[in-house]
Formats: sequence, C-alpha cells, structure tokens
Amino acid sequence: MIERLTLIGVGMIGGSLALALRQGGFCGEIVGYDRDIQALQKALESGVIDRYAEDPCAAVSGAEVVVLATPVRAVEAICRTLRDCLAEETVLTDVGSVKGDVVRAVVAGFGRLPQNFVPGHPIAGKERSGIEAASADLFVGRRVILTPVAGTSAQAQRKVRLLWECAGSVVEDMALEHHDEVLAATSHLPHLLAFTLVASLSRLGESDEIFRYAAGGFRDFTRIASSDPIMWRDVCLSNRDAILNALNHFEHDLQGLSEAIAAGDGRRLLELFSNAKRSRDRFCH
Amino acid sequence: MIERLTLIGVGMIGGSLALALRQGGFCGEIVGYDRDIQALQKALESGVIDRYAEDPCAAVSGAEVVVLATPVRAVEAICRTLRDCLAEETVLTDVGSVKGDVVRAVVAGFGRLPQNFVPGHPIAGKERSGIEAASADLFVGRRVILTPVAGTSAQAQRKVRLLWECAGSVVEDMALEHHDEVLAATSHLPHLLAFTLVASLSRLGESDEIFRYAAGGFRDFTRIASSDPIMWRDVCLSNRDAILNALNHFEHDLQGLSEAIAAGDGRRLLELFSNAKRSRDRFCH
Ligand SMILES: NC(=O)c1ccc[n+]([C@@H]2O[C@H](COP(=O)([O-])OP(=O)(O)OC[C@H]3O[C@@H](n4cnc5c(N)ncnc54)[C@H](OP(=O)(O)O)[C@@H]3O)[C@@H](O)[C@H]2O)c1
Ligand SMILES: NC(=O)c1ccc[n+]([C@@H]2O[C@H](COP(=O)([O-])OP(=O)(O)OC[C@H]3O[C@@H](n4cnc5c(N)ncnc54)[C@H](OP(=O)(O)O)[C@@H]3O)[C@@H](O)[C@H]2O)c1
Repeated sequence: MIERLTLIGVGMIGGSLALALRQGGFCGEIVGYDRDIQALQKALESGVIDRYAEDPCAAVSGAEVVVLATPVRAVEAICRTLRDCLAEETVLTDVGSVKGDVVRAVVAGFGRLPQNFVPGHPIAGKERSGIEAASADLFVGRRVILTPVAGTSAQAQRKVRLLWECAGSVVEDMALEHHDEVLAATSHLPHLLAFTLVASLSRLGESDEIFRYAAGGFRDFTRIASSDPIMWRDVCLSNRDAILNALNHFEHDLQGLSEAIAAGDGRRLLELFSNAKRSRDRFCH
Repeated sequence: MIERLTLIGVGMIGGSLALALRQGGFCGEIVGYDRDIQALQKALESGVIDRYAEDPCAAVSGAEVVVLATPVRAVEAICRTLRDCLAEETVLTDVGSVKGDVVRAVVAGFGRLPQNFVPGHPIAGKERSGIEAASADLFVGRRVILTPVAGTSAQAQRKVRLLWECAGSVVEDMALEHHDEVLAATSHLPHLLAFTLVASLSRLGESDEIFRYAAGGFRDFTRIASSDPIMWRDVCLSNRDAILNALNHFEHDLQGLSEAIAAGDGRRLLELFSNAKRSRDRFCH
C-alpha cells in the first residue's frame, strides 16, 4: 500500500496515470508538481491530484513513490533539484519514451544512479498533450516496459510494477538498449515518416489542393503527425543512434522499392506488398 | 433517367457503387459481369445487382452506361472484347486509381478513344476487397474526379457526373496528368510507405516482438498496408513516373531529417515537426 505518490509533471501522461490509479483502487494521496501552475490548478479542481506543491522538494516530501512525467529534456534539472531533498528510500520512476538518455540525465542530476530509480515507459499515447487530454483508460491492457539497470533495487522495481498493474497495464522488463532500438523502429520511425510525409506534401505546389484529395486512409496514416513537436524533437535528440539506424534500414528498403518500380518488376512488387500485408494482418487484428 | 447500367467487375468498388445508386434512388436495372462467377452470384443474392450475364457482350447489351470496375490491368482485354459489341451511344466510364494508363488501355483495346468514354476515379476506398466488402455509404460526401480528355463527349461526362452525384459523391474535373501526380503524392506514396514500413519491421530480428511493442498509433499508421497487393502492384506499374517522382521528393526530405538528427539540430527538428503538425491540423480536423 503506497500512502503518498508524487507526480512531477501533471500533463497528459502524468494525469492519465493518476486517474488510472484512482480507477484501479489506489487510495493513497497523490501530490502534484509542475512548472505550469495552471495545469496544477486544473488537476486539483478535476480531482486528478489531491494537492500540489509549488516547489519540487515540498512535493516529494514524505512520498513513497515519485513519478517523473515531464518531457525527457527536463529530467536532469529536476533531478539536480531533488538531489538534496529526495529521501533515500523513496522509489523514483519515469515515463519517458527513451530510456538510455533518461538514465544518463538521472545520473547527471544526482551525481550517481539512485538504486531506487526504475526507468519505465508506458507504450500508450495520444496526439494531444496537457492535463485536459488525460484519461483514466489510457493504460488499460497496454504494455509498460521497465528497463532496470545494474544496481536497480528489486524491491523498487516490484513497487513500480504493482503501480502500473493497478493502472491496468501489463508490465514487462527489457534491457535498456534493446528498448531504445525496438522503440526506434516501432514508434519513433513511424512518427518521423508521418511528419515527413505531411511536410513533403505541404511543400508541393498548392497544398490546399493536395490535402483536399487525400483520401480516407491518409487521415489515419498521418494522425501521429499531430503529436507534440517538442516531445518528438526531444525523442530524436535523445535516441539519435537507434533512430538513425532504423531510418537507415527503412531508406534502404524504400530504395529497393523504388528500383522495383523503376524496373517495372511486378513480381517483386507483388511479393513485397503480399509479405507486408501478411505481417500486418497477422499482428494487428 | 438511366434505364440500364452494367457493371464490369462486381467487387468492392463496383458493388458499393450499385448499393449507393440504389440508396440514392436509382431505379434502372443493374446488370453485372465478372470473371468471378461466385461474386456475381453473391451480388445477385444480396440484391446488389438485378441480374448478371456470363459474357461481357451480353452484359452490356442495351446498357446506357457501362462502368469498368475491375483492376486496372484487366481494362485493355475487356475493351478488346467490347470493341465489336458496345453500342456507339453507350457511355463508358471506369473507377481506376490511375488515369493515364487506363486511357492508354482503352485506346489499345478499342483501337481508338471512344468519345463516350469518361475516365473517373472515386477518392474513397477500403483495405478489404471483394463484393462482401461493398457498402452503400462508401462514396457519400467523398470526391470523384473525372479526367476528360480531348474529344470526350460533354453529354457523356454529364451523365457520369449525375451518376456519382446520385451515389452521394462530390464530382470534380481535373486534367489527367495532374490527377496522376496528385494521387501519386496523396495516396500512392502513403500506401508505399506503409507497405515498406511493415516489410522493414518484419525483417527485424524477432518480428513477433517488434510488433508486440508497436503502440496504438502504429495500427492506424499501417492500416493501409492491409490493402490488396495486386491492386497496388498494378498502381505502381501503371503510374510509375509520377510515383517515382513523389518517392524521390519524399526520400530527399527524409534525408534532410536524417541529417538534422545526426547533427543534433534541435531547432531544425522542431521547425520541421511544428510545420507538419500545423498542416495536418489545418487540413484534417
Ligand atoms: N504523449 C505520449 O503519447 C507519450 C507516450 C508515452 C510516454 N510519453 C512520455 O511522457 C512524458 C510526458 O509527456 P506528456 O504527453 O504527458 O506531456 P505533457 O502533456 O506536455 O505534460 C508534461 C508536463 O510537464 C510539465 N513540465 C515541463 N517541463 C517541466 C519542468 N522542468 N518541471 C516541471 N514540469 C515541467 C509541462 O509543463 P509545460 O506545459 O509548461 O511545458 C507539462 O505540464 C514525455 O517524457 C514523453 O516522452 C509520452
Ligand atoms: N480498393 C480501393 O480502395 C479503391 C479505391 C478507388 C478506386 N479503386 C479502383 O477500383 C478498381 C476495383 O477495385 P476493387 O477494390 O473493387 O477490387 P475487387 O474488390 O477485387 O473487385 C474487382 C473485381 O473484378 C474482377 N475481375 C478481375 N479481372 C477481371 C476481368 N478480366 N474481367 C472481369 N472481372 C474481372 C475481380 O474478380 P477476381 O476476384 O477473380 O479477380 C473482382 O471480382 C481498381 O481498378 C482500383 O484501382 C479501388
């Protein structure tokens, strides 16, 4: 039983976690801290948090678990502030979409890696951000990946696992580097393709016209290009190598497709599309 | 008032058109022809068509309008068969996703361009194909582009326009080459990216695992990779130049993105993502 949980960053993900925990029967106190005071007020008024503090150290005081749910780029500065006030026994976790860089930021902020820090990433999201976009069901049935590192306390890890299970998630462990590679391919790459496609189209002659003729599938296909540009800039900067690697593979495959089209190689095209359709249909029902 | 309409190809698009016309108050007879006799039987049993013929010439006999709704690659052979039996006054139209190649196929089949042929393309679709996937609402509020060429009869064009309006569509005219370029960018390119992304991911190490971690957005993003491989092979073969051009532009933009990531150029990344988000939000509400 966790008696007090502190959220640093009361936005879409942080707010959704608080709502999900309540829905899952969490009865402890939820304290919020955010640099955006209006977000805190909204979270308080709508019952997402029980109270807030205007200073991170006051917010984490007496907390059994602290969840970092700010953008990844804010983690280092926050940890530097928490360095002298976070109790040794408090469990610290995060929700960042990349893990290698978060661990580096935590180490840089604390000057060491706290044993009770458990890197985490819920594989669930939305294009909209901010506390208004929070929803209690965001994590239900979705995976949360924990990427413990050498020295991570097993007890802290157990506590974080229980927390996410209470929010309705399925929790798994994964090696940190592997997480960053897998997510570069399955999440970061698709987002970059969507952003690039929309950018590419809007540069064409009369872009009003171009978008007017974009058919039904296009809307779904580019939905993720409505995601928060700041978050995606941060993801690119903090998972650079894995993303460049995924982009490289993709560009190579796209080049192969171009060549098959240029050569009028119908057999190759059919094979390529059939394999892709088979994989898609097998994995996404 | 059209008294008899013949569908050559009673699949997803042809069947949807028949259903949409009925829903729009079309009271003429709808005759079907397809190489797939089971599709014809299903269409008859479910009331999509009023009767069918097992030979194209019998099917078009006495028809005021004939709609070619087979895959694009079948058009030439069908026109060769219709050459000696299609009445001079019968209006002929098609639904193919590319237009330049269809016109070439019609000319090759008939040995000339029939004045009453009106090239058309409904900008509406589905991943599923076949008569079972037909639906009466597919075209409601969606655009249909007609690409008349020099010599196309204005009266035939008017008739085809009325037909699609009866099916609930918004009809527009466009120059044929422009259609093929615009569609290469807004429809063909996104489909190719989706196919390539799925193919690229499924080649990675353990693709079961890869797809397991693909988040919500991924499902929408790759839905169009479930589309009919044969149709997309045909599109690639028949709109080669415009597609290669669109791919080229996209590859160039993707290269620019790679470079910005490699250089850690946060300003450039933010600008790129912000512009894309703005365009997306502006055009797709
Ligand atoms: N969005 C997704 O789909 C998704 C999915 C999985 C994981 N994640 C991860 O979740 C994290 C948060 O994303 P989100 O979508 O919840 O973002 P969000 O809705 O924008 O919420 C982030 C909140 O943190 C605040 N904040 C920013 N810098 C801060 C600082 N230095 N100190 C305190 N608070 C600060 C923000 O305030 P301001 O508004 O003033 O900036 C905002 O209220 C990111 O690390 C992301 O990688 C996101
Ligand atoms: N699908 C879309 O989203 C979409 C959108 C806009 C336009 N279009 C265009 O619509 C056309 C049809 O697509 P669809 O999705 O309706 O395909 P579909 O559901 O597969 O229907 C095509 C039908 O034509 C039959 N056919 C094939 N070759 C034939 C031939 N030589 N003679 C007579 N019938 C033949 C097919 O039979 P078999 O099953 O035996 O091959 C099938 O019953 C394509 O040209 C495509 O470019 C499609």
